[in-house]
Amino acid sequence: MDPEEFRANGKQLVDWIADYLESVEDYPVQSRVRPGDIQDRLPDRPPEHGEEFQAMLADVEEIIMPGITHWQSPNFFAYFPANASGPGILGEMLSAGLGVQGMLWATSPACTELETRVLDWMAHALGLPEAFLSHTEGGGVIQDTASSATLCALLAARERITDGAGNRDGVPDDLVAYASSEAHSSLDKAARIAGIGDARVRKIATRGDGGMDPDALERALIADIEAGLRPCFLMATLGTTSTMAFDPLEPLGRLARKHGLWLHVDAAMAGNAAICPEHRWMHEGMARADSYCVNPHKWLFTNFDCDCFWVRNRHALIRAMAILPEYLKNPATESGQVIDYRDWQIPLGRRFRALKLWFVLRHFGLEGLRERLREHCRLARWFADQVDADPHLERVAPVHLNLVCFRHRDGNEAGEELLEKLNDSGRLYLSSTRLNGQFVLRMSIGQTETRERHVKAAWERIRSSASEC
Amino acid sequence: MDPEEFRANGKQLVDWIADYLESVEDYPVQSRVRPGDIQDRLPDRPPEHGEEFQAMLADVEEIIMPGITHWQSPNFFAYFPANASGPGILGEMLSAGLGVQGMLWATSPACTELETRVLDWMAHALGLPEAFLSHTEGGGVIQDTASSATLCALLAARERITDGAGNRDGVPDDLVAYASSEAHSSLDKAARIAGIGDARVRKIATRGDGGMDPDALERALIADIEAGLRPCFLMATLGTTSTMAFDPLEPLGRLARKHGLWLHVDAAMAGNAAICPEHRWMHEGMARADSYCVNPHKWLFTNFDCDCFWVRNRHALIRAMAILPEYLKNPATESGQVIDYRDWQIPLGRRFRALKLWFVLRHFGLEGLRERLREHCRLARWFADQVDADPHLERVAPVHLNLVCFRHRDGNEAGEELLEKLNDSGRLYLSSTRLNGQFVLRMSIGQTETRERHVKAAWERIRSSASEC
Repeated sequence: MDPEEFRANGKQLVDWIADYLESVEDYPVQSRVRPGDIQDRLPDRPPEHGEEFQAMLADVEEIIMPGITHWQSPNFFAYFPANASGPGILGEMLSAGLGVQGMLWATSPACTELETRVLDWMAHALGLPEAFLSHTEGGGVIQDTASSATLCALLAARERITDGAGNRDGVPDDLVAYASSEAHSSLDKAARIAGIGDARVRKIATRGDGGMDPDALERALIADIEAGLRPCFLMATLGTTSTMAFDPLEPLGRLARKHGLWLHVDAAMAGNAAICPEHRWMHEGMARADSYCVNPHKWLFTNFDCDCFWVRNRHALIRAMAILPEYLKNPATESGQVIDYRDWQIPLGRRFRALKLWFVLRHFGLEGLRERLREHCRLARWFADQVDADPHLERVAPVHLNLVCFRHRDGNEAGEELLEKLNDSGRLYLSSTRLNGQFVLRMSIGQTETRERHVKAAWERIRSSASEC
Repeated sequence: MDPEEFRANGKQLVDWIADYLESVEDYPVQSRVRPGDIQDRLPDRPPEHGEEFQAMLADVEEIIMPGITHWQSPNFFAYFPANASGPGILGEMLSAGLGVQGMLWATSPACTELETRVLDWMAHALGLPEAFLSHTEGGGVIQDTASSATLCALLAARERITDGAGNRDGVPDDLVAYASSEAHSSLDKAARIAGIGDARVRKIATRGDGGMDPDALERALIADIEAGLRPCFLMATLGTTSTMAFDPLEPLGRLARKHGLWLHVDAAMAGNAAICPEHRWMHEGMARADSYCVNPHKWLFTNFDCDCFWVRNRHALIRAMAILPEYLKNPATESGQVIDYRDWQIPLGRRFRALKLWFVLRHFGLEGLRERLREHCRLARWFADQVDADPHLERVAPVHLNLVCFRHRDGNEAGEELLEKLNDSGRLYLSSTRLNGQFVLRMSIGQTETRERHVKAAWERIRSSASEC
């Protein structure tokens, strides 16, 4: 594709994306295709000869679009959001255009240094402890997802407690990891990958508010120590996936300190709200955290993937990860004056992801970001009030930020029928969870273009459908 | 950013990228900044108020560009390439614009089904065994990098040999992994992460051609079995990072089968050449491979990140990775009729990466791709001939594809001086490795726009600089 063709095709694609985003709320939110529908329409062999870009764009329209579930629709209320934005998309475009691979400082110093600076910006914006800033022993890095951040934290914890023996000799069979029963499944996956094993992951009971019970944690710690095991890793969740419950950092941090556990704080979704001072209560006790992560790709308008991960002591992480073969040696690395982010993550190579976060922070400004998050929270409270006043529905968890969990009073079958009816309508998309055996619908309000009218229309449909289930 | 602003800014950025790619060979290839130069020019706090896109783009020009090492320059001959292209960039743009998160089939069926189909296309294009196609028990998936592919393969191997106990109880301390002494460091990293440990990774000696010595492997296997250990995983490399040497798959496959090892084939760079039938010799013996990976983001014009990874038995991989919490349950997953790619990878979330590979395959066609790779190989042979005829330089490895390894006859200091002089010139960028204590320069010819004139100019500079060292 010569430069002139690239210009023409690129501009056409920019228009296509703009048209899409302008009309996204007209699409059925959840794709209606059945398994195999998309594949069946694609040739089973690659083309021998080159094709025109127009042919590809036509196939995007005809074949791909029916198979898209529209995460960017203002009527997407499922899971947690993955809210993109104009500046986020432009940042991703620029990253693709530069085509930089930032595994080492030397392979593009700006890729590393912008990331370090933007992570410092984020730490300031969220009110994180000084110890996470890059001028200390700590620092931040962009991971693809919170799952990878959790795995990195667990590997650093494993390395710290075994003092190098874990890397050398494999994982001793006495390490134990702890999280609440409501923690994200990424902990289970990380514990498997890192060789801790399902059998030594303790799911600690929660209190009435959904946060981990520190007394139950202490009992588990003592039982494990008495059984000759070594508590190694504690994951505290700020904003659980099911109901956005908050673990109490302060008492968990005291227990982590007392028993020598690595304390990782998973604030993937809710942590974004800490850009608003009124939501910083969740960070009380952060002074004892060894690592922390939050996903701007969830609720801070930065295209997926962008997870911000900080550690208090970068050396623990680097010791767990660093291997320096001959073919990666270079004067900058050997000087010890630079960060090589390959040693802060699972893969070797890395994209220039800091650009999109930099563009988003500058485009909105902290003020603009706060305003949007506050509006989402206001809409969630309004929605919760409607649920509370409804005869058919019942709210099942407190609304701290932008997630409302509710059930049908007639039971699980009515709830499942309600969800199916809503999602099949194409006018909105919610997801579900289970709490104490109850089928629960989740209304997560965080898409970039979600406004009052979308939430009101969603409520109207939910209310009327619920009365018919 | 409203749609009209997005259109205007997006088109300006398309022009900016086109201008950049048109002029990329005029930049010094390797960035000349010193540690801290870029960071020092960035404010230390995020902006409170929003800024114009023009201000950001101006800062890209003034602050970021001096810190870029130009991977897309036709004079980039370092490491292995990360060769992007117009259709690759457009695919990444479209992915960013759609903002899809494809963790489950249900969260965008097209994201999963296009990926499955395009991986089948790639398997056909490379002549991979039928057992890797998606209509069998096997199938393919896009990973970020070959490092992650290696880790996934090792986790599947660990799960298979322990029959579930690895996930449940942690990693037994008798598992052993094998690779050649020239294998990529990602194996060491994966073995650490997966809890095998450095002490149970065997680096098998190579023969004169740089490929693993099967007799040495067999001796190592027998010694470990006699010591009561369990051989678990064998990584064969097609195209090592230092010199692009090839492990002999046929005898390695026989040993893997005999001793029950998982055979993973890492063809990250060289595997791309298998789109040309004349290079398929490297795949002889593939019938015994359990998994295979190749990176179109290296040498197939598809923007980083895009690693294609196949397994012969998808269930082994899924058993190692799958955890299904309540909040991800959905009818499609429960039907068992769909692929949920979250269970084929380390992270949970995933971008719509198949778009860029689809665009690249369709834009070039297999014919167009073969033509470009053949030209890179031709230029490498020409370059090797020049080295062979030069009085100051000596070639140190056979040229199978597009990598030429050479040294200065006057010794390591002369070689290091030569590399520094070349890279400091800004006119080209090479990297280095060490072979048997010798400092070796690597000339890797694979950038999208690298033509004969670039290789000739590079040779002229190398030749004349070498005569002065």
